[in-house]
Amino acid sequence: MTLFPEDKPRDECGVFGIYGHDLDVSRYTYYGLIGLQHRGQESAGIAVSDGESIELYKNLGLVSEVFQKGILKGLKGHIAVGHVRYSTTGSNSVVNAQPLMFNYLKGTLAIAHNGNLTNAERLRNLLSLNGSVFQSSSDTEIFVNLIARYGQDELEDALKKCMIDIKGAYSLVIMAKDKLIGVRDPFGVRPLCIGRLGDGWVLSSESCALDNIGATFLRDVEPGEIVIIDENGLTSHRPMNVGRRALCIFELVYLARPDSVIDGYSVNKTRREMGKQLFREHPIDGDCVIPVPDSGLAAALGYAQESGIPYKFGLMKNRYVNRTFIQPTQEMRDIAVSLKINPIREVLEGKKVILVDDSIVRGTTSRKIVKMLRKSGVREIHLVVSSPEIHFPCYYGIDTSNQEELIARRMDVDGIREHIGVDSLHFLSLEGMLAAAGQEPENFCNACFSGDYPVEVTDQNLSKGILEKGVSR
Amino acid sequence: MTLFPEDKPRDECGVFGIYGHDLDVSRYTYYGLIGLQHRGQESAGIAVSDGESIELYKNLGLVSEVFQKGILKGLKGHIAVGHVRYSTTGSNSVVNAQPLMFNYLKGTLAIAHNGNLTNAERLRNLLSLNGSVFQSSSDTEIFVNLIARYGQDELEDALKKCMIDIKGAYSLVIMAKDKLIGVRDPFGVRPLCIGRLGDGWVLSSESCALDNIGATFLRDVEPGEIVIIDENGLTSHRPMNVGRRALCIFELVYLARPDSVIDGYSVNKTRREMGKQLFREHPIDGDCVIPVPDSGLAAALGYAQESGIPYKFGLMKNRYVNRTFIQPTQEMRDIAVSLKINPIREVLEGKKVILVDDSIVRGTTSRKIVKMLRKSGVREIHLVVSSPEIHFPCYYGIDTSNQEELIARRMDVDGIREHIGVDSLHFLSLEGMLAAAGQEPENFCNACFSGDYPVEVTDQNLSKGILEKGVSR
Amino acid sequence: MTLFPEDKPRDECGVFGIYGHDLDVSRYTYYGLIGLQHRGQESAGIAVSDGESIELYKNLGLVSEVFQKGILKGLKGHIAVGHVRYSTTGSNSVVNAQPLMFNYLKGTLAIAHNGNLTNAERLRNLLSLNGSVFQSSSDTEIFVNLIARYGQDELEDALKKCMIDIKGAYSLVIMAKDKLIGVRDPFGVRPLCIGRLGDGWVLSSESCALDNIGATFLRDVEPGEIVIIDENGLTSHRPMNVGRRALCIFELVYLARPDSVIDGYSVNKTRREMGKQLFREHPIDGDCVIPVPDSGLAAALGYAQESGIPYKFGLMKNRYVNRTFIQPTQEMRDIAVSLKINPIREVLEGKKVILVDDSIVRGTTSRKIVKMLRKSGVREIHLVVSSPEIHFPCYYGIDTSNQEELIARRMDVDGIREHIGVDSLHFLSLEGMLAAAGQEPENFCNACFSGDYPVEVTDQNLSKGILEKGVSR
Amino acid sequence: MTLFPEDKPRDECGVFGIYGHDLDVSRYTYYGLIGLQHRGQESAGIAVSDGESIELYKNLGLVSEVFQKGILKGLKGHIAVGHVRYSTTGSNSVVNAQPLMFNYLKGTLAIAHNGNLTNAERLRNLLSLNGSVFQSSSDTEIFVNLIARYGQDELEDALKKCMIDIKGAYSLVIMAKDKLIGVRDPFGVRPLCIGRLGDGWVLSSESCALDNIGATFLRDVEPGEIVIIDENGLTSHRPMNVGRRALCIFELVYLARPDSVIDGYSVNKTRREMGKQLFREHPIDGDCVIPVPDSGLAAALGYAQESGIPYKFGLMKNRYVNRTFIQPTQEMRDIAVSLKINPIREVLEGKKVILVDDSIVRGTTSRKIVKMLRKSGVREIHLVVSSPEIHFPCYYGIDTSNQEELIARRMDVDGIREHIGVDSLHFLSLEGMLAAAGQEPENFCNACFSGDYPVEVTDQNLSKGILEKGVSR
Repeated sequence: MTLFPEDKPRDECGVFGIYGHDLDVSRYTYYGLIGLQHRGQESAGIAVSDGESIELYKNLGLVSEVFQKGILKGLKGHIAVGHVRYSTTGSNSVVNAQPLMFNYLKGTLAIAHNGNLTNAERLRNLLSLNGSVFQSSSDTEIFVNLIARYGQDELEDALKKCMIDIKGAYSLVIMAKDKLIGVRDPFGVRPLCIGRLGDGWVLSSESCALDNIGATFLRDVEPGEIVIIDENGLTSHRPMNVGRRALCIFELVYLARPDSVIDGYSVNKTRREMGKQLFREHPIDGDCVIPVPDSGLAAALGYAQESGIPYKFGLMKNRYVNRTFIQPTQEMRDIAVSLKINPIREVLEGKKVILVDDSIVRGTTSRKIVKMLRKSGVREIHLVVSSPEIHFPCYYGIDTSNQEELIARRMDVDGIREHIGVDSLHFLSLEGMLAAAGQEPENFCNACFSGDYPVEVTDQNLSKGILEKGVSR
Repeated sequence: MTLFPEDKPRDECGVFGIYGHDLDVSRYTYYGLIGLQHRGQESAGIAVSDGESIELYKNLGLVSEVFQKGILKGLKGHIAVGHVRYSTTGSNSVVNAQPLMFNYLKGTLAIAHNGNLTNAERLRNLLSLNGSVFQSSSDTEIFVNLIARYGQDELEDALKKCMIDIKGAYSLVIMAKDKLIGVRDPFGVRPLCIGRLGDGWVLSSESCALDNIGATFLRDVEPGEIVIIDENGLTSHRPMNVGRRALCIFELVYLARPDSVIDGYSVNKTRREMGKQLFREHPIDGDCVIPVPDSGLAAALGYAQESGIPYKFGLMKNRYVNRTFIQPTQEMRDIAVSLKINPIREVLEGKKVILVDDSIVRGTTSRKIVKMLRKSGVREIHLVVSSPEIHFPCYYGIDTSNQEELIARRMDVDGIREHIGVDSLHFLSLEGMLAAAGQEPENFCNACFSGDYPVEVTDQNLSKGILEKGVSR
Repeated sequence: MTLFPEDKPRDECGVFGIYGHDLDVSRYTYYGLIGLQHRGQESAGIAVSDGESIELYKNLGLVSEVFQKGILKGLKGHIAVGHVRYSTTGSNSVVNAQPLMFNYLKGTLAIAHNGNLTNAERLRNLLSLNGSVFQSSSDTEIFVNLIARYGQDELEDALKKCMIDIKGAYSLVIMAKDKLIGVRDPFGVRPLCIGRLGDGWVLSSESCALDNIGATFLRDVEPGEIVIIDENGLTSHRPMNVGRRALCIFELVYLARPDSVIDGYSVNKTRREMGKQLFREHPIDGDCVIPVPDSGLAAALGYAQESGIPYKFGLMKNRYVNRTFIQPTQEMRDIAVSLKINPIREVLEGKKVILVDDSIVRGTTSRKIVKMLRKSGVREIHLVVSSPEIHFPCYYGIDTSNQEELIARRMDVDGIREHIGVDSLHFLSLEGMLAAAGQEPENFCNACFSGDYPVEVTDQNLSKGILEKGVSR
Repeated sequence: MTLFPEDKPRDECGVFGIYGHDLDVSRYTYYGLIGLQHRGQESAGIAVSDGESIELYKNLGLVSEVFQKGILKGLKGHIAVGHVRYSTTGSNSVVNAQPLMFNYLKGTLAIAHNGNLTNAERLRNLLSLNGSVFQSSSDTEIFVNLIARYGQDELEDALKKCMIDIKGAYSLVIMAKDKLIGVRDPFGVRPLCIGRLGDGWVLSSESCALDNIGATFLRDVEPGEIVIIDENGLTSHRPMNVGRRALCIFELVYLARPDSVIDGYSVNKTRREMGKQLFREHPIDGDCVIPVPDSGLAAALGYAQESGIPYKFGLMKNRYVNRTFIQPTQEMRDIAVSLKINPIREVLEGKKVILVDDSIVRGTTSRKIVKMLRKSGVREIHLVVSSPEIHFPCYYGIDTSNQEELIARRMDVDGIREHIGVDSLHFLSLEGMLAAAGQEPENFCNACFSGDYPVEVTDQNLSKGILEKGVSR
């Protein structure tokens, strides 16, 4: 949706895996990926093993667009892995779609990855020097090539060696012809959980996809853990223990679905708590609390409940504005936002409004919404945000847009307030956000807010742009 | 979306018209129709006049699917009318799509219609006896043929004669090569309003589409009024005055968009008031108020505010489950609902839940949602509905499904309660609903609840099926 | 294919009908229409009756594009009619697609038409004056409205009355819910034949479609004949006898498929004979005979055989240049022809070439081919054409393009020769063409060559453009 | 087209490259690939370099399906390479589409390959042992990985080393960011030629594509030659000289387009000569010579001319039966062939027919055509084939189907004759075929006829199946 770039950080991917001899694994993966579709809308893919060989199908588009009935029927087996990828402007080729499937000394593997490596450039250079080939700009090829370099080892051992070499955030689902493997990086930056479906096993980025297919949540994959699922059931390896966890707090703030539970945190509850904490820190005496749909829904509810100020739907979202929509011309520009989100005058007119959103990245959409609210006759607009200012880029798999575009890098809070055009603007404090999330604030990665990067960032010029140069998209 | 038939009455159409010499009228109509897309998802069409001739394009699909950039560019002129049509199972042909365009003695007209006639059968028989031809099952062809039979008259006069002959509900937007006409039936059952866009004029089923394109709301077309917009501006005719109004109350209950204002009623506010009234009539002491997304959002908020019970999002809707989605097999059946709506256990577990919806037609979806909530560990479920039981079919353009499928015709409230599986079930009273809507309860059509039909129903076997027999779909 | 408008007259349509209780009639119609696809590539439609009601599906595109498996499966019954329509630039709407389906006093009919009426304007005016409505620019609606005006009569009688009122060329296939009807105009301008498939019956524009579905050719429908196929088998009515026949000679020259036999004439043989006659009239002493692919294949063979000059393939046609192809830019213009037809230098270099085509309409393509041949080093090019110059427009259903574009109206043979750039140019004489076709030269319509119109042309301004003005396309 | 698998060997690919600073290289490549479309219909791809970076787009489908206008516009630069790939049943993924684009030590390369390696398995094993990764079943990845292993060398030197390591048939077009490279294997099994377009350079599998874009044929790339085109023009390297040539004779028999000239052989002329030679070896006194369309057109013409027996078109091919066509059901099976090819009774009835085709692989289609001819009343059918029996598989890039399916491996000529159902059957002799092709019979690879493999076949179990096992398709 290049027309209305949600002014939000975007997760890079969702991964899913399933193992079960009596299960229609490709269909379950299809439904699982639809449950994870919010984590990526650019491409979708499913690979299936029948114990002998692996078949893969992937293409650009939503899960429901990529997979037609006939294609799913052609993917028969008892193990499957799937992947959804987020949308970037201009990236119109299928080369970076996942799962990646490759042959190496020990046979065929399919791999699906969520996250981002922080020493990819160094490893890529090293591998290139020794004759490795990279066919995409995806970090996942680093794993692929490293596994191949350790091709004399058993797969489990190769993976352990990879975990030592590789720095960064990764939740992986890997399929060999006879087994399903889940790997989570030593800090557990990206989520990954395990479920049961009858006698079968499921791996998923988020628990909501387990619910969707009727599977039962078993537990999260632990940071630094390798789980191997084969005919002997599940075995766990813990080659890495770095002494701390660092779940991306942004999964709770915005990325994950409200009905997921990640590392024990209910996403929905956490967001509501952030809203409550937001009121405690910034109590405003308004006429009503208005969420920005859909990102501010839960936090606004928390704010309303803690404050006792009425919760109102003051902005209506049009569900039919989608990617295939014709862009308004330059002169019809304001129509773009209005078509997507329309104010409800009855709620707003003459009111002192407390507008709640979960985060501000570039401030562009906020500004347009505020302009629109003004036209609807609001008296005052007080924007409260259930996370702190984003000062720092994410190196662990979240696209927070270009650093220069981060509004908080360019202005102070008052500058942002003026830019957006609100009467007052308040961000939740870092401490408040972490407190709202739960008891162990040190268990999160909050680098985008604090600059405190838990995982070593080796690459000198680490940026998405660098990695892509000269490589196929 | 035949997979998950929303268990809701469906509006039949949305209409839109625009007149303006300096406006890109086809593009504005495109955006206007996207703003009215909730009124019909089966087909979309736009006809444009450049003063000399009329060009029409229509096809099956959403507005954004039917119209590609090149097609819009081919529709040049200064007057346009557009139409969106609702989705019925199996109706896979473009024959019933609108606008209808036809040639008669006086030239070419394009016509877009929202509503349903109640003496269509009689008029159709009469016209057939005299050699008229009908190419679709659409009522709109009655208008078309009657206008042609009065072809010696000026169009305005022909329309006045038609309004005397025709009984039923209709909001029409008609375009001749040099004028735009809006017509609303004498009771004003379906909405139609007028806006200004610069020096130009806009007609729209709902005011939300005016907002979307940046037009200003001027006023509603009055019941029984004909408005003619041409180079002399707008002229109004009031050939019919039946002494009362009968706006469809269901537009306020469910059909219209919350951000629309119809005949002076804010849709959003009315729904919230219905929720408040619902609590006054049926005060329940629950732990939380949970809306069925998205239909119960506003009423639930009213209920929560009136009661002081916390409003919670306990059901998460997946925006990516769409029409092109592969149906789960019989054995994966429960997955269908779960993929679309997933419970948030954190909110529900151990709770006495007040579940709010706006209406119950067949009860099928409610039953599935309740089953799902039970699995999430709720303690008690009390379902409150912000409208009365639907006992009677609508003859004025709303598809309330087959009469036999109306659950309230087959069981009493306790039977429905048991069928749906809730601990208690409460409907808003007819009086309560009307009171919530506003000061003049006699101004509404509430026939589906009361059986009190304001507009004469002449056809003996009036039912959608009858009209369609042997006619092309 | 607007990019490379074949410089050929185009037939307007192909019609097909089938009746058989044990037959999958929609599938047979699908295959039959593929066999008639050369008669029209713009739209395709199939209507099916199960004895109770009629279902119709039609859309823009080739038969194989319009009909997906699921759609055919939805068309169940024992009678079917189908239609393919030719492609006109800019006509991007489905309104003119056929079969037309309509309801009138006696029930539902589906009608498919090949041909063109010559008093359509007068009849349309007359009907309009009496309140008839026309939803398309298609002549077929004249039939539809006239049948309805005679709605008190039995269908057969209504059709007989229509045949008296209507002038022009028409081969019709009509379906009521319980019968299949074939009608051919009194002069038999357009072809229509009857076949048997087991106990069932088939009607088809050309016999090739009978072969394609494994049906046996029975006989042609006679000029002025109505054949009615129902549970009693076939009954024939001959309400009209005008004393002469007038099969369009262009069906034999270019339009029909070589493997069809029409009114006893083998299309392939006739074309070959025309080529032989062409040599007899214009013997040229060349090095080789080269057909323009594919239109000149048969005539060139006749010329080669009669002359003893070697037949050679000197032009290669690319089967992959299709409608979805991106147009070359202005500066790459010559690429367009070259991509479609490429000369084979080995055959051409240094040769005195006899180039054979079946007809010349505007001369545009011929000119481009000749230019291309020159580049390939031919010594001389002698273009011989197996039909006379086209001086007159066709009013009977063939699009010979605008009159002004007919090159033979603007220049004499030597002018055309110079324009096209050949060393000599020779057309087959009218007498020669008719002699080649067979024994009864008076049995053909050759108006486009001779101006001798067998069927009365009433409409004053008869031209495609006139009829379409202000009517939906 | 799985429905009617042409019973013909299939080429694996077509390659194209272009270098020119003032040229719209992606558009020219698009048109060039359309000219090479007969060499592959499964997938198409184009990569473009602007001197700084390389962009690639490829997908499944015909060239005109894969590339929309917007996509071509996004491919800007002054160097381009393109590729078309043939269609195999079930291979529904884009993974094997080309060009392949990859990053290695020296930067980014795009590579397009036509041919097949004969020591791929050995090299793949060797590379795997050393940690290489293979993402497809395509041989081309062997080149890619070898180039990367020689990554310390300049590209030209790396290519020379590759040519020593690699055995097999390959015509390659390679693009670095600043140069275009063409490589032809030491035996020149697959064609590759050079053209000029203004100041620019073109590489193409066949000369027909040069004609199509208005380029001038310069010369063939020589066996074992590397040509490098950059800002200094073209430089040639001849690292390999094996002392003989071995152009695949099947390019002349069937694969190449008639309007191409390969290594000095006119394809069209060679086929005609084979037909003449066929008569000399097998003179039959028939009534007419009938080609199987389109494969037998040229040879039949040669046979007719040499014999003096009339050439006739006795079989009509339907151009509208395409890949998206709905398969006839089991009971309608015969319709499949009849829809595609229909006999012309007028030509055939009572005749002693000499039917000419270019080759017989499995005999399936021939058998169906013969059955159909019998129904048309032919008296005798004598099938003459303008190439010898195919006894041996091709290891150099032609899919001659499974060895077991080669009818000539299972039966002698009389057995085949009986199976196909003809009165007599005659194959051209190996000597005759080579003589017809030209003066140097030893310059061809004719292994599929003779078993005499010019290029070493190292892999023990060389077969398409082996290579694909466990690798993504």
